[in-house]
Amino acid sequence: MVENFKMPWEERPAGCTDMMWRYSQNPVIGRYDIPTSNSIFNSAVVPFGDGFAGVFRCDNKAVQMNIFAGFSKDGIHWEIEHNPIQFKAGNTDMIESDYKYDPRVTWIEDRYWITWCNGYHGPTIGIGYTFDFKEFFQCENAFLPFNRNGVLFPQKINGKYAMLSRPSDNGHTPFGDIYISYSPDMKYWGEHRCVMKTAPFEDSAWQCTKIGAGSVPFLTDAGWLLFYHGVIQTCNGFRYSMGAAILDKDCPEKVLYRTQPYLLAPAAPYELQGDVPNVVFPCAALQDGKRVAVYYGAADTVVGMAFGYIDEIVDFVKSHSL
Amino acid sequence: MVENFKMPWEERPAGCTDMMWRYSQNPVIGRYDIPTSNSIFNSAVVPFGDGFAGVFRCDNKAVQMNIFAGFSKDGIHWEIEHNPIQFKAGNTDMIESDYKYDPRVTWIEDRYWITWCNGYHGPTIGIGYTFDFKEFFQCENAFLPFNRNGVLFPQKINGKYAMLSRPSDNGHTPFGDIYISYSPDMKYWGEHRCVMKTAPFEDSAWQCTKIGAGSVPFLTDAGWLLFYHGVIQTCNGFRYSMGAAILDKDCPEKVLYRTQPYLLAPAAPYELQGDVPNVVFPCAALQDGKRVAVYYGAADTVVGMAFGYIDEIVDFVKSHSL
Amino acid sequence: MVENFKMPWEERPAGCTDMMWRYSQNPVIGRYDIPTSNSIFNSAVVPFGDGFAGVFRCDNKAVQMNIFAGFSKDGIHWEIEHNPIQFKAGNTDMIESDYKYDPRVTWIEDRYWITWCNGYHGPTIGIGYTFDFKEFFQCENAFLPFNRNGVLFPQKINGKYAMLSRPSDNGHTPFGDIYISYSPDMKYWGEHRCVMKTAPFEDSAWQCTKIGAGSVPFLTDAGWLLFYHGVIQTCNGFRYSMGAAILDKDCPEKVLYRTQPYLLAPAAPYELQGDVPNVVFPCAALQDGKRVAVYYGAADTVVGMAFGYIDEIVDFVKSHSL
Amino acid sequence: MVENFKMPWEERPAGCTDMMWRYSQNPVIGRYDIPTSNSIFNSAVVPFGDGFAGVFRCDNKAVQMNIFAGFSKDGIHWEIEHNPIQFKAGNTDMIESDYKYDPRVTWIEDRYWITWCNGYHGPTIGIGYTFDFKEFFQCENAFLPFNRNGVLFPQKINGKYAMLSRPSDNGHTPFGDIYISYSPDMKYWGEHRCVMKTAPFEDSAWQCTKIGAGSVPFLTDAGWLLFYHGVIQTCNGFRYSMGAAILDKDCPEKVLYRTQPYLLAPAAPYELQGDVPNVVFPCAALQDGKRVAVYYGAADTVVGMAFGYIDEIVDFVKSHSL
Amino acid sequence: MVENFKMPWEERPAGCTDMMWRYSQNPVIGRYDIPTSNSIFNSAVVPFGDGFAGVFRCDNKAVQMNIFAGFSKDGIHWEIEHNPIQFKAGNTDMIESDYKYDPRVTWIEDRYWITWCNGYHGPTIGIGYTFDFKEFFQCENAFLPFNRNGVLFPQKINGKYAMLSRPSDNGHTPFGDIYISYSPDMKYWGEHRCVMKTAPFEDSAWQCTKIGAGSVPFLTDAGWLLFYHGVIQTCNGFRYSMGAAILDKDCPEKVLYRTQPYLLAPAAPYELQGDVPNVVFPCAALQDGKRVAVYYGAADTVVGMAFGYIDEIVDFVKSHSL
Amino acid sequence: MVENFKMPWEERPAGCTDMMWRYSQNPVIGRYDIPTSNSIFNSAVVPFGDGFAGVFRCDNKAVQMNIFAGFSKDGIHWEIEHNPIQFKAGNTDMIESDYKYDPRVTWIEDRYWITWCNGYHGPTIGIGYTFDFKEFFQCENAFLPFNRNGVLFPQKINGKYAMLSRPSDNGHTPFGDIYISYSPDMKYWGEHRCVMKTAPFEDSAWQCTKIGAGSVPFLTDAGWLLFYHGVIQTCNGFRYSMGAAILDKDCPEKVLYRTQPYLLAPAAPYELQGDVPNVVFPCAALQDGKRVAVYYGAADTVVGMAFGYIDEIVDFVKSHSL
Repeated sequence: MVENFKMPWEERPAGCTDMMWRYSQNPVIGRYDIPTSNSIFNSAVVPFGDGFAGVFRCDNKAVQMNIFAGFSKDGIHWEIEHNPIQFKAGNTDMIESDYKYDPRVTWIEDRYWITWCNGYHGPTIGIGYTFDFKEFFQCENAFLPFNRNGVLFPQKINGKYAMLSRPSDNGHTPFGDIYISYSPDMKYWGEHRCVMKTAPFEDSAWQCTKIGAGSVPFLTDAGWLLFYHGVIQTCNGFRYSMGAAILDKDCPEKVLYRTQPYLLAPAAPYELQGDVPNVVFPCAALQDGKRVAVYYGAADTVVGMAFGYIDEIVDFVKSHSL
Repeated sequence: MVENFKMPWEERPAGCTDMMWRYSQNPVIGRYDIPTSNSIFNSAVVPFGDGFAGVFRCDNKAVQMNIFAGFSKDGIHWEIEHNPIQFKAGNTDMIESDYKYDPRVTWIEDRYWITWCNGYHGPTIGIGYTFDFKEFFQCENAFLPFNRNGVLFPQKINGKYAMLSRPSDNGHTPFGDIYISYSPDMKYWGEHRCVMKTAPFEDSAWQCTKIGAGSVPFLTDAGWLLFYHGVIQTCNGFRYSMGAAILDKDCPEKVLYRTQPYLLAPAAPYELQGDVPNVVFPCAALQDGKRVAVYYGAADTVVGMAFGYIDEIVDFVKSHSL
Repeated sequence: MVENFKMPWEERPAGCTDMMWRYSQNPVIGRYDIPTSNSIFNSAVVPFGDGFAGVFRCDNKAVQMNIFAGFSKDGIHWEIEHNPIQFKAGNTDMIESDYKYDPRVTWIEDRYWITWCNGYHGPTIGIGYTFDFKEFFQCENAFLPFNRNGVLFPQKINGKYAMLSRPSDNGHTPFGDIYISYSPDMKYWGEHRCVMKTAPFEDSAWQCTKIGAGSVPFLTDAGWLLFYHGVIQTCNGFRYSMGAAILDKDCPEKVLYRTQPYLLAPAAPYELQGDVPNVVFPCAALQDGKRVAVYYGAADTVVGMAFGYIDEIVDFVKSHSL
Repeated sequence: MVENFKMPWEERPAGCTDMMWRYSQNPVIGRYDIPTSNSIFNSAVVPFGDGFAGVFRCDNKAVQMNIFAGFSKDGIHWEIEHNPIQFKAGNTDMIESDYKYDPRVTWIEDRYWITWCNGYHGPTIGIGYTFDFKEFFQCENAFLPFNRNGVLFPQKINGKYAMLSRPSDNGHTPFGDIYISYSPDMKYWGEHRCVMKTAPFEDSAWQCTKIGAGSVPFLTDAGWLLFYHGVIQTCNGFRYSMGAAILDKDCPEKVLYRTQPYLLAPAAPYELQGDVPNVVFPCAALQDGKRVAVYYGAADTVVGMAFGYIDEIVDFVKSHSL
Repeated sequence: MVENFKMPWEERPAGCTDMMWRYSQNPVIGRYDIPTSNSIFNSAVVPFGDGFAGVFRCDNKAVQMNIFAGFSKDGIHWEIEHNPIQFKAGNTDMIESDYKYDPRVTWIEDRYWITWCNGYHGPTIGIGYTFDFKEFFQCENAFLPFNRNGVLFPQKINGKYAMLSRPSDNGHTPFGDIYISYSPDMKYWGEHRCVMKTAPFEDSAWQCTKIGAGSVPFLTDAGWLLFYHGVIQTCNGFRYSMGAAILDKDCPEKVLYRTQPYLLAPAAPYELQGDVPNVVFPCAALQDGKRVAVYYGAADTVVGMAFGYIDEIVDFVKSHSL
Repeated sequence: MVENFKMPWEERPAGCTDMMWRYSQNPVIGRYDIPTSNSIFNSAVVPFGDGFAGVFRCDNKAVQMNIFAGFSKDGIHWEIEHNPIQFKAGNTDMIESDYKYDPRVTWIEDRYWITWCNGYHGPTIGIGYTFDFKEFFQCENAFLPFNRNGVLFPQKINGKYAMLSRPSDNGHTPFGDIYISYSPDMKYWGEHRCVMKTAPFEDSAWQCTKIGAGSVPFLTDAGWLLFYHGVIQTCNGFRYSMGAAILDKDCPEKVLYRTQPYLLAPAAPYELQGDVPNVVFPCAALQDGKRVAVYYGAADTVVGMAFGYIDEIVDFVKSHSL
């Protein structure tokens, strides 16, 4: 992983008192940014070389879902490959997928690990890795279907890989909590624990229908900082917003704090309309120890960015905890 | 109550032939107009002092629903309190609520009465009063749950308080008709009568799924003029529009006329997108005997205003009755 | 009311250790016991004269629901009128009903009061009274629709009439809790309080979907003893069982004890099959201070009886409380 | 029919590589273009005289659905009648409808035939004809309810009239495939065959929930070119896009090719918001043998146009077939 | 057809006052009466030769639905073929079916016509004929899917074949009314008219969810006598009962009378339990001008018979009409 | 495990040609066979000592689900403990469960392994072991919720434990296929593969809604013989029947054969009525190499047995394979 990198960043606008603010040039990736795409959203980025690499969800014009590699010098302007990632056999030969979507990426020890929602008789969590974002290797699916939003921790915890995920059903799942599972080897998974559940409607309605892990957590003095999405079901469908939680460093199934108010909710035009209106869906966070840039899918159509100061956010999560 | 007041008003735009027209500076209240708010909508106003007072639904950024007092010199520019209304015991000690939303306000005899959707094991109709919009007193809930859209008449009828309401269920109720109930004392309610039901799809589809009372009715020569909302369920959710009905002066469960066409339906951008797209939801009407200004929630996100001439509207309701 | 009466009774069968046991000659009323009936069930009885009177739900062969008077010498063999009860105006002129079902009867002060599920734009709670079971008077519906299972207390509490009920929706309501409401005059109702909610699936699944008041409560040393029904939704529909609760004598919204196990659940052939399989639905209880005989609808088709010793039942409710 | 006519047309924008592109002045018909209308969309046009005629779906402000005649010199600027079409008896006396919507029009042999969704105890396919767009005659409904999207072929096939349609249910049908039926006389219909079904989610998700015929097919060297709509159900409702299929000239139930990618999907503001967001719904196509102009309803609110070269489209359908 | 035949018959039991009564030896056909069968029900019979022939729905132990020929001397004891009917091409070559169920049979002019629910991309109405119950010919399906309960009239009406049917959807359709359609040739169908709809819950709840034609109608002095089924949806599923209607002789879409009470509803053990509890489903009626024997499926498992006097039934339908 | 044991057995009844037949004294365990039970069903047995041991699902009268040990000399007459199994920590300290139901038991190598549906924020697969049916140890749950019907193979396959299961949702799951997962250590699980899916309605409707593993598979010359349940959803709920499959010995995700007809379906009274009517649910099979005795839950109320000859069954599965 790259330790020193040039953080993509834009200062808080004058007069803004929000913990997190949108990039003024949002969306940073448009729906048609590669020739075949219908939409590009819910994508993940990491520092790479002297810039950044990422894995992008690009639905094509047949509305087939797949993931694509991309590269950027500044984390804002991206070149996305025109063909989806082709995987080679990693720890499994079963490398066919009905579809791939909602990737996350993180460096662990010696390589970049990618997780995504993998179509195998329904959605489950696919795992792959790359050393260079050119050659990709696919591993065994982590879980039985049906599951979504699998997010790895960026380091082993108590000697084991750790993954957050959200058990689901085979449709537009109207429920969903966040669980953690552990693996000694990225092949067999167990020690499943419930981490966070939806909030009561009265306490925090934006996250009362379902929640799911968003970005790869990163360590702060307070613990793991996780951006996650919460969903409320209005009479006109689901609305996805973003909050944050702080998980215990050594025992991440222990939630120390968790935002009662959201940090970002659909309000900008590109979040309010698109293929699925009213969606803010975080999938990645870049940070330099002080600042954080969150990449989020907007309206299941484009990619936006939002910024914040980590200390402020941590303080806010602590002081506005559910 | 204030008899002579400066009516908020804007003339019908040139070329417009609609019975009611939007204020050109809509929305008059934005979603972030107080620091904690996620959205401000479905709110009620009355003349007060030399200006106006109101009770506003402000959902905070945890999407908790509550009602707030506010004041205005002109009925258009509002100062809304930053903290929700705190109630003292009125005719009950049970003054806790899980949530409060969709207030209505009216002067009766000696004080301002407020009704709202009150969270008590589900939505029901809360009642309170104030003399000054500073000190508020809460009364017994009018009904068992589940109920929404409780609207008081501004004077006693046959010696009793009268309230419109819409029996509901515990979710996004897909049905709903308007009933009236009477009370000798604002504590016990009875003599429940059905007032208006949804219209057949073939006759008036915009109000075929559910209807609910909107603004506090006011007397015209023709009877009580009530602005109400009607809902159609499209394949993409509920769409809320506004119509009007004329109820018999002495026996308001008798509907004399009721609009077959709507008076206002979602068409402006702030009505078409927001937290719940396609919502026009009237909650209050100011009038000076000739003109009326309706305050309505737009897209469950902001407050808009629409204007009209009462005579024209009454004639229209009569001539376009279902 | 009759103080001394001949209790219908059958001793606990040899070897039986259950708190309550079925009458060996069940069902006591068959589905075709009057010429027009499709089914007779969910009915109520009281001591009357030197015997008993009752109000019976008899659905006719058009499956129209109505209530009928009936008389018995011994509480077991019944003569039911062949025509439904015709009401005269009590405290209201609105004495038309779309349907009437699930009656309860109790003596209060000077007359027999009857409550039932009354069809007025959907189910709500109808109220009537009689002095002689020949002439009947109808009062205002207690509540707005939608409501079911309205059960009066047999005496005023703190000077007011008190009624249990279960707010519902307009179909086969898949939810339901028990509330209490008060009235100074049997016309206007208020002071609504939640009494009992469904139990968590893990704790007492037979009552995890909905619950509703059953028989008219009667006073014991421990408080009001109420037989109620609880419902679980299996993959093949609703299953109704019977439990009991003890409510505070002076403040009956306070539940002192409530059975975690059921007292009676569908197991006999006439409970397992019929128009609605798997239903045990108590509507009345006769008692002599020591013994109790519960009348219950079985499979929405016939009427059964179950017996028990009050002391044993009270002890059981206390020692097996949820 | 008119052989030589002035094709409405706008060239492909510079830099655009799409097969079909929107008219830069979309929408060509606005929601309020006649005094009574709430929305004008899903409408059909044909060459007529030295210009064009059409049948337009105009929902009025009571949201009653009906069809109206209209005329245009250039196919872009339209004068629509202010009153709905009044039908006279054609081959039936049953000319009442609960509602009429989504018309299609085609010339066959000696007259213009109109089909539409006709309200007769639910939606079914109405048939009518006109010689002059002034006098209209109604025929027997083609099918039993429930059916939508009836589209006639512009010539007899094997001596019989042929119609595509989509069997439906009585609500917002969540399923739907395209069938063909034949008639010797426009009165009795039979020989029903399944033509096209929805696509598997993995292969072409935009058409995985339901599909329906759109424009009247026209002959190309490759066979009948049909523009049709496909629907995906997202967590926020239905999204309608447009594709194309090529059907065998002599046996049109045989699908030769069918687009895996869509040709046009909601992305413009007037397609993304409106009474039903995210709808592109083709109902007519004008063509001069080389070029085609498709008229489509946008967001169930307005009418838009899209253009393309027939050869390019045919090649695309062949080379991107499902 | 056979004019003089030996009517299967059993007298009304002593003490019975019902219009129709069950055969004391019911069920007449058991679920395992052929080696492969899981259940035999919803079947049709006609006089044939010196006895009777029939077409039987036998679901096999894979629960595949198919129809089988059978023969009987007395109409009560049946020999059913062990292999399903194999059809030859009648007026169509499309003689494959995904499944066949719920047959009806009638003689018209020169042959026995059979209709059934035919699986062609969902249920629709299949048509076939035979002269001898040995050789069978299949015709075009009458309608587009989805349809069930197609029942032919036993003679042409106004020169055309006439068929009752119930438009449905692709699942356990929760709605359903009876329509009539006409055909000049048993190939093309049109002139669709609504005949009977479900009854309001308040008036006749047993037929408030859906209704469908049962037996082939036969002429009486009062008009066509049709036995039909009606369905109510209880909280534990659908309950099917039997009623009767009298249709105008020359214009059978005109309903002259129709039973408000049912004639037969599930009450016998073999009707109350089985593969689908609580089903009485008439599919055929034998009659000798005075008496009628109805064959009905019971609990989707076996076949039962019920008897009655035609005059009594006609009088009852007239005097108890909805 | 016990090699030679006295097989519980009853010969095929005279005249019976079915592959499997019911025990004439069914049910072998009644619903009230222990004092606290509401029902005893879906239970598992193994040879043990000179007789048999088992783990039984006994729902108590609060309808709490738990598992109990039991013992028998002959496999037919059982003594079931009156208290549920208390687990000690095995490879986990997390030994609390919200509920336990539907156990399976098998000997592997050195101990008896038990799997069951374990309540941990919803149903998932619990694992435990015992050496003596007195002391029990609980292990980590195999999977994330939601899952049901976890069934271990009785020996390691390719060096790993293997378990069948059915991913589910959090309610009365209306879908379900059988998967296999592998574990090196009974703690971490992976290599998830789909084994069997539901059958098309047209081919084998009894198993078209969901399927789930039943008894622990045992080896035959043809491969692993697995009894499983299949479900069809009728208009009156789910119906559970039993079939069998033969899985490849070394690669059990490979299905060699699978019954198109069921082997046993609800037809006996104790299967047709009870807490959940129409359920046959196999959970265990005893066999001596020639004969097999299947234990199955009936109507979610009692335990029944069915017998068969293994060779006959294997031949039948092969010759009647889907």
